[in-house]
Amino acid sequence: MAEKIVIVGAGLVGSLHAIMMARKGYQVEVYERRPDLRNIELQGGRSINLALSTRGWKALEMAGIAEEINNICIPMYGRKMHAIDGELTYQAYGKENQAIYSVSRGDLNKRMLLAASKYDNVSFFFDHKCLDVDLTTNTALFEDKDGNEVSTKADRLFGTDGAFSAIRQRLMKTDRFNFSQEYLSHGYKELLLPANPDGTHQIDKNVLHIWPRGEYMLIALPNYDGSYTCTLFFPFEGEYSFDSLQTNEQVENFFKNVFPDFYDLMPNVAEEYFQNPTSSLVMVKCEPWNYQDKIMLMGDASHAIVPFYGQGMNAGMEDCSVFQEMLEGFNGDWSSLFNKFSTQRKPDGDGILELALQNYIEMRDLVGDSDFLLRKKIEKKIYDKYPDKWMPLYSQVTFSHIRYSEALATGQRQTKIMDKIMAMPNIHERWNSEEIEQAILAHVD
Amino acid sequence: MAEKIVIVGAGLVGSLHAIMMARKGYQVEVYERRPDLRNIELQGGRSINLALSTRGWKALEMAGIAEEINNICIPMYGRKMHAIDGELTYQAYGKENQAIYSVSRGDLNKRMLLAASKYDNVSFFFDHKCLDVDLTTNTALFEDKDGNEVSTKADRLFGTDGAFSAIRQRLMKTDRFNFSQEYLSHGYKELLLPANPDGTHQIDKNVLHIWPRGEYMLIALPNYDGSYTCTLFFPFEGEYSFDSLQTNEQVENFFKNVFPDFYDLMPNVAEEYFQNPTSSLVMVKCEPWNYQDKIMLMGDASHAIVPFYGQGMNAGMEDCSVFQEMLEGFNGDWSSLFNKFSTQRKPDGDGILELALQNYIEMRDLVGDSDFLLRKKIEKKIYDKYPDKWMPLYSQVTFSHIRYSEALATGQRQTKIMDKIMAMPNIHERWNSEEIEQAILAHVD
Repeated sequence: MAEKIVIVGAGLVGSLHAIMMARKGYQVEVYERRPDLRNIELQGGRSINLALSTRGWKALEMAGIAEEINNICIPMYGRKMHAIDGELTYQAYGKENQAIYSVSRGDLNKRMLLAASKYDNVSFFFDHKCLDVDLTTNTALFEDKDGNEVSTKADRLFGTDGAFSAIRQRLMKTDRFNFSQEYLSHGYKELLLPANPDGTHQIDKNVLHIWPRGEYMLIALPNYDGSYTCTLFFPFEGEYSFDSLQTNEQVENFFKNVFPDFYDLMPNVAEEYFQNPTSSLVMVKCEPWNYQDKIMLMGDASHAIVPFYGQGMNAGMEDCSVFQEMLEGFNGDWSSLFNKFSTQRKPDGDGILELALQNYIEMRDLVGDSDFLLRKKIEKKIYDKYPDKWMPLYSQVTFSHIRYSEALATGQRQTKIMDKIMAMPNIHERWNSEEIEQAILAHVD
Repeated sequence: MAEKIVIVGAGLVGSLHAIMMARKGYQVEVYERRPDLRNIELQGGRSINLALSTRGWKALEMAGIAEEINNICIPMYGRKMHAIDGELTYQAYGKENQAIYSVSRGDLNKRMLLAASKYDNVSFFFDHKCLDVDLTTNTALFEDKDGNEVSTKADRLFGTDGAFSAIRQRLMKTDRFNFSQEYLSHGYKELLLPANPDGTHQIDKNVLHIWPRGEYMLIALPNYDGSYTCTLFFPFEGEYSFDSLQTNEQVENFFKNVFPDFYDLMPNVAEEYFQNPTSSLVMVKCEPWNYQDKIMLMGDASHAIVPFYGQGMNAGMEDCSVFQEMLEGFNGDWSSLFNKFSTQRKPDGDGILELALQNYIEMRDLVGDSDFLLRKKIEKKIYDKYPDKWMPLYSQVTFSHIRYSEALATGQRQTKIMDKIMAMPNIHERWNSEEIEQAILAHVD
């Protein structure tokens, strides 16, 4: 009889992993704390928006659902920066036709659950809250919505239950389990920019909009019902902060002064501001990701990151695809497999955490800066001419399968080179010259 | 009626804090998971040994129990290093008569509990395991040894329940609580070196013995029954490690080759080695240490460190004395008091964590090195002649009340200066010259 795979957490990573393991013939049980999303009518993609990119697509293809998911995505080919004086600057994310894809979390999750349901060897248990795991027998204990205790004994247990994972909390009590959770001093609040009366988008649809303002930033991702899910990233405390904006008038004045073109589109912003919750941003690291040959943590459960590189979901999905690749030629030795996955994948979890933090600074502070824009322009030129010698960091992370840990290291080398190039006299005039090109290539070779 | 202070954890910090708060007239309840230590007959100080130093003594004096505790301590005036070839090197810890004090954890804790019991306004609840805290009402829930649930509503609740604090675990689930636990790749094992048949010590009593060996180290602290509590700090994995030593023969050969003079004193070492448990070493950080005006974490609950500076207990006791100092002139505003304590004291918790890690390297790798010994000799000379200009880091940490965070910063400046001095030609010959003295003073002023 096939081994029993218990997956705790039916979010994006859990449902994807369920499909993949079902396709391998395992007997899969999926437990989820929340109600069954499959039966809930979602409002036209209105909920947290995510950006699917190359790593995510690869995993969706392995699971055989890429085409279906593509139907609910909106491609974004670049960033549009909104300056305070209304000036707009556009920057392509990659080469022509390379895009990241705006998608609603709820809608994506629902379709993945429906796809998993098609496999006879997958069973779902919703409204089941994980209470504990007996590590000796690998038996997970749940409470269902009627307050009954339900337990299941797993051959292998996967914890895909997110940044506040109950499975990880159990592992935290085992000896020599390293763990950290760290919050940013910034939080976020979502604001829905509605569609035009005719259902079209109020601003360009195929880009990610950014209003970079140093200590704070607003972004907007398109929904396919014509609305935009906008997110304000803002300090919790300080002169301008969630703490300091307490009245409608204060919020309106703030948006009028700081995001004037956005305020024109959404003069009722204060209403939404006080209706919607303020959320915090946490980063989670742990090690090891596995417990012997019994338990494996995946996705946010083992590596929750800040959302500024659009990679949280993609990194979790890549966990699944890397795990499947390691299953190729699997000889039944789960202990080696689990140790290998944890050891190899952990540096990539750390890598994308670091990259996402760096991009936070870049998005807030740099995308409106002329030196920064020139730097990207020069990198793009070298990439176009010498794709084997130079791939910009953003492309490595977003449009390749290069390990995150490698991308981080290469990016650091590239930054040092570009610092030297940007320090050359009159670089804004000379950037497109043969001389600059040769100077860069000399550093690369 | 006096406010009710609930203290969870009756270890060294909890029992000391109970005494101090009782002396201020508060109604104090102390809950402890373990049985009542007051009724247990301890074996002549045989258990984990600790080193009391200046910060600990100050707190014990504030609690009025320094004299009593002094009766169970053995002063250690310096380190004696045992080289592999049997050569012994002695190094005083501080000025003449400055010492750190070897004391048994169990014995110390028992006496502090007995001292706290003398106050009518202190009640103890042993065998009470903390299950949860209701943060809204500040009510702590316990399970007693008969499995009954017992709860108590606190005006102020202090979590002094150690590195794996249940109170902290509850706070971890509140928003924006930063936390990390990190284990060293080294663990430890205790070995008891018995007294001579006549009850005297086998090796000098008034020193701390160290066998520094790079990747591993053995230390020995005197007990007052003539025995020594020895601790082997050793990697978990690798060529020589807890993992690799599996047979009596392997252990004996290892001790014979690596700690030959110790092996001569304790030829039955393999027996003890396999009888005694192997323990891990964890570092804990968190922030904030308080929850509003309701809960405060102290001691290992908020800052567990590695034992290599002999400061874990002293830092916890200093939490208590600093808290008492902040209570002077207290105007009833617990919110300000708790925020102030957490904010001011947290950098010192981080500071001693960092210092203890650094001393780990120093003890294992450096105390047997001639450059290191010269460096200490030069520092001692300058300190003797110019005590206002230079206090060696060890003295700042061990024999002063300088904030740990300041000591760390000053120590880093001193290291940079001494690096330059040690790089001067022929320093081993010239170290005692007027010229070197002036060179150091030039950097200090």
